[in-house]
Amino acid sequence: MSNQPSDAAKIPRQQDNYTPESIAERQAFLLKQTGVTLKHVAHSSVDPATLAGNIENPIGMAQVPIGLAGPILINGEHAAGHFYVPMATTEGTLVASYSRGMRVLSEIGGVTTTVVERYMQRAPVFHFENAREAKEFGAWFDAHLADIRTAAEATTSVGKLSHVEQYGVSRMRFLRFNYTTGDAAGQNMCGKATLAACTWIQKNYPHKSRYTLSGAIDTDKKHSHINTLHSRGARVVAEVVLPKEVMQRVMRVDTKALFAARQVSNVGGMLAGTTNNGLHAANGLAAIFIATGQDAANIAESQAGIVYVDLLDNGDLYWSITLPSVIVASYGGGTGLGSQRECLEIMDCYGDGKALKLAEICAATVLAGELSLASAVLAGDWVESHDRLGRNRP
Amino acid sequence: MSNQPSDAAKIPRQQDNYTPESIAERQAFLLKQTGVTLKHVAHSSVDPATLAGNIENPIGMAQVPIGLAGPILINGEHAAGHFYVPMATTEGTLVASYSRGMRVLSEIGGVTTTVVERYMQRAPVFHFENAREAKEFGAWFDAHLADIRTAAEATTSVGKLSHVEQYGVSRMRFLRFNYTTGDAAGQNMCGKATLAACTWIQKNYPHKSRYTLSGAIDTDKKHSHINTLHSRGARVVAEVVLPKEVMQRVMRVDTKALFAARQVSNVGGMLAGTTNNGLHAANGLAAIFIATGQDAANIAESQAGIVYVDLLDNGDLYWSITLPSVIVASYGGGTGLGSQRECLEIMDCYGDGKALKLAEICAATVLAGELSLASAVLAGDWVESHDRLGRNRP
Amino acid sequence: MSNQPSDAAKIPRQQDNYTPESIAERQAFLLKQTGVTLKHVAHSSVDPATLAGNIENPIGMAQVPIGLAGPILINGEHAAGHFYVPMATTEGTLVASYSRGMRVLSEIGGVTTTVVERYMQRAPVFHFENAREAKEFGAWFDAHLADIRTAAEATTSVGKLSHVEQYGVSRMRFLRFNYTTGDAAGQNMCGKATLAACTWIQKNYPHKSRYTLSGAIDTDKKHSHINTLHSRGARVVAEVVLPKEVMQRVMRVDTKALFAARQVSNVGGMLAGTTNNGLHAANGLAAIFIATGQDAANIAESQAGIVYVDLLDNGDLYWSITLPSVIVASYGGGTGLGSQRECLEIMDCYGDGKALKLAEICAATVLAGELSLASAVLAGDWVESHDRLGRNRP
Amino acid sequence: MSNQPSDAAKIPRQQDNYTPESIAERQAFLLKQTGVTLKHVAHSSVDPATLAGNIENPIGMAQVPIGLAGPILINGEHAAGHFYVPMATTEGTLVASYSRGMRVLSEIGGVTTTVVERYMQRAPVFHFENAREAKEFGAWFDAHLADIRTAAEATTSVGKLSHVEQYGVSRMRFLRFNYTTGDAAGQNMCGKATLAACTWIQKNYPHKSRYTLSGAIDTDKKHSHINTLHSRGARVVAEVVLPKEVMQRVMRVDTKALFAARQVSNVGGMLAGTTNNGLHAANGLAAIFIATGQDAANIAESQAGIVYVDLLDNGDLYWSITLPSVIVASYGGGTGLGSQRECLEIMDCYGDGKALKLAEICAATVLAGELSLASAVLAGDWVESHDRLGRNRP
Repeated sequence: MSNQPSDAAKIPRQQDNYTPESIAERQAFLLKQTGVTLKHVAHSSVDPATLAGNIENPIGMAQVPIGLAGPILINGEHAAGHFYVPMATTEGTLVASYSRGMRVLSEIGGVTTTVVERYMQRAPVFHFENAREAKEFGAWFDAHLADIRTAAEATTSVGKLSHVEQYGVSRMRFLRFNYTTGDAAGQNMCGKATLAACTWIQKNYPHKSRYTLSGAIDTDKKHSHINTLHSRGARVVAEVVLPKEVMQRVMRVDTKALFAARQVSNVGGMLAGTTNNGLHAANGLAAIFIATGQDAANIAESQAGIVYVDLLDNGDLYWSITLPSVIVASYGGGTGLGSQRECLEIMDCYGDGKALKLAEICAATVLAGELSLASAVLAGDWVESHDRLGRNRP
Repeated sequence: MSNQPSDAAKIPRQQDNYTPESIAERQAFLLKQTGVTLKHVAHSSVDPATLAGNIENPIGMAQVPIGLAGPILINGEHAAGHFYVPMATTEGTLVASYSRGMRVLSEIGGVTTTVVERYMQRAPVFHFENAREAKEFGAWFDAHLADIRTAAEATTSVGKLSHVEQYGVSRMRFLRFNYTTGDAAGQNMCGKATLAACTWIQKNYPHKSRYTLSGAIDTDKKHSHINTLHSRGARVVAEVVLPKEVMQRVMRVDTKALFAARQVSNVGGMLAGTTNNGLHAANGLAAIFIATGQDAANIAESQAGIVYVDLLDNGDLYWSITLPSVIVASYGGGTGLGSQRECLEIMDCYGDGKALKLAEICAATVLAGELSLASAVLAGDWVESHDRLGRNRP
Repeated sequence: MSNQPSDAAKIPRQQDNYTPESIAERQAFLLKQTGVTLKHVAHSSVDPATLAGNIENPIGMAQVPIGLAGPILINGEHAAGHFYVPMATTEGTLVASYSRGMRVLSEIGGVTTTVVERYMQRAPVFHFENAREAKEFGAWFDAHLADIRTAAEATTSVGKLSHVEQYGVSRMRFLRFNYTTGDAAGQNMCGKATLAACTWIQKNYPHKSRYTLSGAIDTDKKHSHINTLHSRGARVVAEVVLPKEVMQRVMRVDTKALFAARQVSNVGGMLAGTTNNGLHAANGLAAIFIATGQDAANIAESQAGIVYVDLLDNGDLYWSITLPSVIVASYGGGTGLGSQRECLEIMDCYGDGKALKLAEICAATVLAGELSLASAVLAGDWVESHDRLGRNRP
Repeated sequence: MSNQPSDAAKIPRQQDNYTPESIAERQAFLLKQTGVTLKHVAHSSVDPATLAGNIENPIGMAQVPIGLAGPILINGEHAAGHFYVPMATTEGTLVASYSRGMRVLSEIGGVTTTVVERYMQRAPVFHFENAREAKEFGAWFDAHLADIRTAAEATTSVGKLSHVEQYGVSRMRFLRFNYTTGDAAGQNMCGKATLAACTWIQKNYPHKSRYTLSGAIDTDKKHSHINTLHSRGARVVAEVVLPKEVMQRVMRVDTKALFAARQVSNVGGMLAGTTNNGLHAANGLAAIFIATGQDAANIAESQAGIVYVDLLDNGDLYWSITLPSVIVASYGGGTGLGSQRECLEIMDCYGDGKALKLAEICAATVLAGELSLASAVLAGDWVESHDRLGRNRP
């Protein structure tokens, strides 16, 4: 038996692709084409009709194991109290490691979190005959921002245009529209609003202009340094003072050694040209994102971070991580689906007014993971614990 | 009812956490603590005993919708023929968009894929009294590479130490060990082997030395520029010549406009300081990664890319994307779990000798997505199609 | 005879170090210490008394050969007409190469230049107990910008505070003060004004704060990506449409080949992680900077650039370079010294109201050099011309 | 009188442009065209005949003030003992500031310097039909490296091809040739040798290939991250342990405060996307480069640096700076000219076998400047000293 499809048969589609029959037809098609029976993929508890808008050509569900980490005590502006954090992953050791960090953070009074700002972007570029026209357009844009804002905001009941950055290169003017998007991630909301803004501009700008809706500085589904500077999604800080005694007792590491390792990582990070001088923010973020119906592709942006530590005179260690581009939503997208909504509800993060709370939980979780892994590396537990807990992972 | 846990009760754990009873106990615990009934999370078809090594404190499964994209015709060294690609995502439009790109690629004879190289890394740093000692160590290391290799490879039946990059900074010597890791992603394999290498070095280096197992240039779970230069995981190229006529007929775009948009994105990408001058590689990669049990946190690394296009004299458009750090496995990790293994089998990518094939399918899929989105942006379909297909996504 | 000083004797200093006697004493001292007679260094036409404020422990003059390039026809907002450009360098071929580019640019109607914006920066960082206090400070700062501006501008008759960027990281708030500085480069003016602003803030901010006058994002005497985004000194664009026929006749290259080479360089530049995807802006800038008394260390910042080209339907080639951080002055610093002032006067760029003009000439010159070298590389002249003209340069 | 040239008259050239008459003719021409009398520019002690190979269209000399800094005690492999360092600059305070740092370094036993490696590069790119051919070429290249080396080295009596890095992107293969170049900077030597290598390759490679002599990863006259990783010119480390007591007494700063400021700069540097997390390496380098006839445009590359500090238990402060791309020569280029050679001789750095020595002096000088400025910023001297010493610099 070869799994290679014998021909390039089209995937069956029906009038309504979100019925059990339509899904079953595609499963049968795959069996015929590839010989694979989708026993596990077919095992879903979700009404297929609810999947419209989240997936096309549905064939079933990926079942990703969820482990429960925590509780973690968070002193946030939006997230305050103890939280259990559902993490979806197949990487052995991960949940255990984050839990260990959470235990320490909770024991010492919790981690403080702050959302510095939160915006979503769409960044068109306008083209002109020459740089001087591009520059003049920039001035005209600033003078007409109120009208442009009105045009943009007319497309959405939630999104508000906060501010627009301008960058002049060659005969182009790059604009980076920054919106508040309520509790949605808001990429599409921003796209629609910015399209309306650009349409208004083309109609009203007295000179010839041409634009592209994305000039690649948004920067969607990829990290760019502009995100580290100007945020994309939530810019969140998680910080804590780690008592020397606790770290020694629980983590078996000296705060001085932890501090020294951070200095070395700063060098390594600069040498490597890193987008995150911390350890593994992506691990915690990806696990929460998958569990809670976030767009996992946004790990590309969300993984960036700046760690800053300070060794205090008494030997305690101030540790902070700033995540400049955590893209999360508490409604819309995948947040309302079966298991995803349940996982949000575990943290009371589903629905209105919960996006900032979720962003804070993400940052707090990331910090827990940093402490845990940093300690494990120093204490020599790292390789050993993966050997023990992660035996499926070669 | 508040979802906030009333206290910081510990998550229940038993001797064996991978029994139905243990999982049920944690579900009951969560209900008591947060008031949330895990109807969907609890719906699993997987024998919990098989989860050990992939998750800790399991409470159930995230159900992530899988859509089927394809078929895509691939002319790879390892992937040859038509493939149906399972994509797990909650982002409406995504599967439809990738499918559209695949349709074009298949119609024009397929996409060519090449794995340029594939290595996994662990990068310790050795510390010395001063830079001169660090430099001397570097020379000693090169002279003893054979012995060091033997020590490293003794820890693994699969991994082979290919080569070691050296970087001198201050009084430190950063070493980047590059291994072939068979069909596993291999992070832990590399960690273990490098630990053995470092132990051997400490025992045999005639002078004083001290090391840290990771000097932050590996660079795990984060993008660093060193990956773009020296690869992490598979460095894969997908390339195709797009006939002007087909793009016009099927995608309703002119190849010249597509080409011009890439030039603008090069400017925007340089301005933004981007890690990927393409459009949205992370979308396709994340969807395949989740479906097939890859480590989704590796999207942090895998999202990087270099797009290069060339407009031919006849108006056809050469398009390539080079993904320098696609981290995939065809066994180990989450690949053997229920739905994950099925999704790998759909592409005949499960088990021995399939990792390079999977890497090629990933790159081919990414290219399909680039063409589709690039065309949609130009044809003005972008905002409209999200409105139509992605109505759950504000 | 050894040139090694036999002991660590102090360099002689007098009450007034700017007299012929004091200079001669140091020359004699060097002869005694190192055996070197400063015949050429001692050869100066400048009244030593005028050197105070530009140099300490003066011993004479470096004589750097000046070649005359041009004329170059510039269509700038500030520089309009034909210019002869004095270039101080010891790199054979350089002046000839730039002259060749200027000849082409002049023949085809000149190069268009635009100063998009021009600011100088000083960037203090304020420290707080935690990220929330840092965020609150940011809001307070914005609310008190008028007063802060008054405090800053009180220190200077020329400088005006345009705007202040804010960046929150950890428990710090980074501020980037942007000033217009008249015709001076203005680094010290900005330092003084920002010091006054910070002093005012500390006195008036109702909570505890601490600051560092430079938080390393200014970013003085080094390139940082923030400069490419937000400019430092003048952001200047030089652009031109190169007729296919002229490039073929004069430069012996096809515009299509020139265009293609730029695409390859975009790939190479992204691979290398470049700060300039052009060819050698630093060559032209350094030569003008040294000739005209600019601070040559600012080559670190000024060398950055973004090249954007577009091949037109008729085969002509639009070529632009955007220099985001050209730091030049037409008075102050070294601009008033003997040969330096003369070189500025050659271009009518000395004194009031000439800084933007000089910035435009710099950008136009850089573009000339780009065209010339790009053509030479393609025409195969590159190695040969260095062999012929630069025989002193191995 | 307008300085604008009335027409686009050609600069006068003669059979021999390096005679007093030819130079005088151009000076007269400039007077006629612009009304400027070149009194100072015309003041040269150098035989114009010796300028051929260093400049075209010579009109005279830029006179750049040289100040003498030092002595600085250096414990290098190549530079050992006390050195007086000639620095050509017009930036008031600079020489005084570096001298202050040198005084401290000398008092505490000197600065240790190490040249980690030194190579010069030329980086061609080879183009193929597709990525697979490019990959095959890479393997062929490695197999024929001995022959390629022979071809390259046949063009030079000095240069030796050390190793060649390979990078595969799209259907291209980027090669980075690394040469030792004796005491020359060697850019042209490398260009010539690599051209010969490429010619040999084209003749002998059994399949079709095409190349560009520079694929933009060399990376000449611009900073690129690849230089920080893989060096360009000399990779030099300067390091020292600063006694707490001396820093307090001489510099009036606490080592702890100095250390803390470096941590903040690491954050600021990462935020800004910096190429140098130190303070102002370019200042010292530019001043030495101009004084000693180095190519000042190479400040673009040479300005990069990585500072690493460590606060010792006794309060002393280990401070190091790694300069990955210091491009210096002790012969060739401008090193043999009048004042330039004298300045090299002051440091016994002219001629054979002195390039590494000069590189070490550069790094040691840079370190002195870092200490001095870092201390001044903290002690509050910074703005004040510029006010006092740099009164010409607004």
